[in-house]
Amino acid sequence: MGNITPCITAVAGYTPDYILTNEELEKMVDTNDEWITTRTGIKERRILKGEQQGSSVMAIEVLKQLLEKTNTDPKDLDGVIIATVTPDFFFPSTANLVAAGVGATNAFSFDSIAACTGFIYALETGANYIRSGRYKKIAVIGADKMSSITDYTDRNTCILFGDASAGVMLEPNEEGLGIIDAIIRSDATIGKDMIYIKGGGSVNPPTHETVDAGLHYFYQDGRNVFKYAVKYMADVAAEIMERNNLTGDDVAFLVPHQANKRIIDATANRMGVGPEKVMLNIEKYGNTTAATIPLCLRDYEDQLNEGDNLILAAFGGGFTWGSMYLKWAY
Amino acid sequence: MGNITPCITAVAGYTPDYILTNEELEKMVDTNDEWITTRTGIKERRILKGEQQGSSVMAIEVLKQLLEKTNTDPKDLDGVIIATVTPDFFFPSTANLVAAGVGATNAFSFDSIAACTGFIYALETGANYIRSGRYKKIAVIGADKMSSITDYTDRNTCILFGDASAGVMLEPNEEGLGIIDAIIRSDATIGKDMIYIKGGGSVNPPTHETVDAGLHYFYQDGRNVFKYAVKYMADVAAEIMERNNLTGDDVAFLVPHQANKRIIDATANRMGVGPEKVMLNIEKYGNTTAATIPLCLRDYEDQLNEGDNLILAAFGGGFTWGSMYLKWAY
Repeated sequence: MGNITPCITAVAGYTPDYILTNEELEKMVDTNDEWITTRTGIKERRILKGEQQGSSVMAIEVLKQLLEKTNTDPKDLDGVIIATVTPDFFFPSTANLVAAGVGATNAFSFDSIAACTGFIYALETGANYIRSGRYKKIAVIGADKMSSITDYTDRNTCILFGDASAGVMLEPNEEGLGIIDAIIRSDATIGKDMIYIKGGGSVNPPTHETVDAGLHYFYQDGRNVFKYAVKYMADVAAEIMERNNLTGDDVAFLVPHQANKRIIDATANRMGVGPEKVMLNIEKYGNTTAATIPLCLRDYEDQLNEGDNLILAAFGGGFTWGSMYLKWAY
Repeated sequence: MGNITPCITAVAGYTPDYILTNEELEKMVDTNDEWITTRTGIKERRILKGEQQGSSVMAIEVLKQLLEKTNTDPKDLDGVIIATVTPDFFFPSTANLVAAGVGATNAFSFDSIAACTGFIYALETGANYIRSGRYKKIAVIGADKMSSITDYTDRNTCILFGDASAGVMLEPNEEGLGIIDAIIRSDATIGKDMIYIKGGGSVNPPTHETVDAGLHYFYQDGRNVFKYAVKYMADVAAEIMERNNLTGDDVAFLVPHQANKRIIDATANRMGVGPEKVMLNIEKYGNTTAATIPLCLRDYEDQLNEGDNLILAAFGGGFTWGSMYLKWAY
């Protein structure tokens, strides 16, 4: 059991067809393409249109691809973990719907909530299920329909987010490939007042007043969040490199949460890796919360080789933040 | 690493002061004490009163007790997992707030969503973190303010639920005590149409229409859910006994999710254990969702001895269901 490493054996992603461009946003709120691009690096994002379409619709497509790529019978899947802050419902969980959507009738399934660090959190959880030696195939999927919590009259936030789902299959590896180390942390002491949705949970259940006050929308103190994000994401990426004796030269790719290009650049600088080693697709998808990191892995899959050292890093609501060191397995 | 067993080293619970009795419910809806008691076994339940009070308020009290009972410095806590379907917010997560509430600044923290089976799910997740050998102290806490999603004009459901939080500290054990086995499953194929909250997530974000339609309240098809619950909870309890070669004589206690006394009786019958071996406190607290099982452990802690075989079992929204076999460690 001691020599099992949880490793990623497939990646997949799903992005809705509808493209919301900066040009279209210019018609909705007082903003412009140059301002958005300079501040965030985002040119367009995808939006899931249609009635009764929640995050699970996208995640089901991702899980179907993961099963196909790994040639897995749905009945052999041991578990589905969905990282999300926009579950379809409080219950059934989004993971329940996704597992049922592919016929994974022998799997556990639950949602894991840790905001923008959600995917790294869920991946470490899935990794520990594999490390236990008791589970062989776990799908870890980030899925967020951010458009469901975005106020499209607020120019500060509506430019940031997109809808997407992406994920990985985790399986045991006995050759030392896969997830080597992770650091996951949280601190709501300051974070709780800087990024939040005030309404919709047990503190402020939905009422006419909460709807009128816009309490069900994403809010952040952008300036301060930026400051903390730059520091925490760079620190935690540097920390995991140090404790695994890695320099920038050893790293094939940084896989950063895609919230803002300037935060990503600061993290890469701190790690001593050049821009050619930074996975980046924020210009096409914006911040898709729990989906950003696996969506990058999907887009860069062809450039990855067995044994490549990857550093994942994220920071977000909570605050939560984390990093992960893994050796690509295929 | 192979000889580590994750074991419970402390239990704690918190129930709000306000007692909602069957007599008070008689004044609110068309029901009566005899009907409620016969159908459900519930006499009273606790309600968390006061403005801006979410599930985290209760869970913080539980975590404080767990730290005190295990003489743990908050800074030595590795993680906080909160099982809930009534998080304070979508973000920050309830676990973020709870970790910050006790000063656990070196801990990860996330919410795990699996409805009434939430605690068993979260306990198996925490167990796998311990089994990995990388984490030494994980708090696993169920917390639900069910009154925040209960329609107190619906006599079918408002009699069932109460507010509470309870949880355990998990640590590694090298003497074979602790969590031996778990079975966790889900199936939304039928379950999604039988227990749900339709509003509040990414499928139906809060609007005036969803508020007027009462979509933010718990709903269940009680008759059919009862039928499935009796079968699935009894089956999964029997299955874990069989695969661990346990008979009713070997079991010190069944620790069942407290949804309905008749479901509990059916499970005990199937396992071949008498009523003296069934933990039961539903008459005092009703169904507190993710808190029921650890609240039972708290109430029966004095009757437990080192090495006692316990079977945990639950069934609920999703559907999700599960069972766990553990040897009590103190």
